[in-house]
Amino acid sequence: DKNDKTHSPDDVLTPSSEEAVAITEGQYLRNDWCKTQPLKQTIYADGCISRTIINRFCYGQCNSFFIPKQELRQHVSAFQSCSFCKPYRFNWITVTLRCPGQKPRLQRKRVQRIKECRCMAVPLP
Amino acid sequence: DKNDKTHSPDDVLTPSSEEAVAITEGQYLRNDWCKTQPLKQTIYADGCISRTIINRFCYGQCNSFFIPKQELRQHVSAFQSCSFCKPYRFNWITVTLRCPGQKPRLQRKRVQRIKECRCMAVPLP
Repeated sequence: DKNDKTHSPDDVLTPSSEEAVAITEGQYLRNDWCKTQPLKQTIYADGCISRTIINRFCYGQCNSFFIPKQELRQHVSAFQSCSFCKPYRFNWITVTLRCPGQKPRLQRKRVQRIKECRCMAVPLP
Repeated sequence: DKNDKTHSPDDVLTPSSEEAVAITEGQYLRNDWCKTQPLKQTIYADGCISRTIINRFCYGQCNSFFIPKQELRQHVSAFQSCSFCKPYRFNWITVTLRCPGQKPRLQRKRVQRIKECRCMAVPLP
């Protein structure tokens, strides 16, 4: 086979698209991280007594990759993926604020209470 | 001030939204990474002799965070950011394939040639 005749060291060390997918998955994909940390959140409204609740926030470093592949007709394509450290489990709570001398005397605020964060895939075009 | 009277250890250790932004920026944002690696890419078409070019691919772990903040009226909001390890510098090249005995005898394919990858912000809703 003519293609097997001359292999430079670069050819041998340079992966193909399929091998690149394996590299990204094998070598590093298990090491991403996404932390769930406590956070004081102040809920307020004009004329009301503000309240502080304990919520959580998310931060981390999640995997992403972009690997070119053969275009299909005019449609240029790639294997691509990006993930985001964001709320995975959460609920909605209602916080009631007292507003002395105001009408109405109570105001309700809806708050997203985060329970757990994870790296999750972002929709890509 | 009534609010200063009782501080549990948890209150002291738990940051506010603004402090959380500072934590994410200070403690870890400088340690994200995005690699640019060589890749063999085969360009092919029906009835043509395929050619292999050296391209590059991107992979890494980029920063993201999600920090709840006070809702504004009905509009629930958060400080949020997500970045993606993807092509930062690239050009478009045309690869010509020979197609013996076919009409036309040559076919041209456009390929995105990646030069450098970086963590770049993804648009979020």
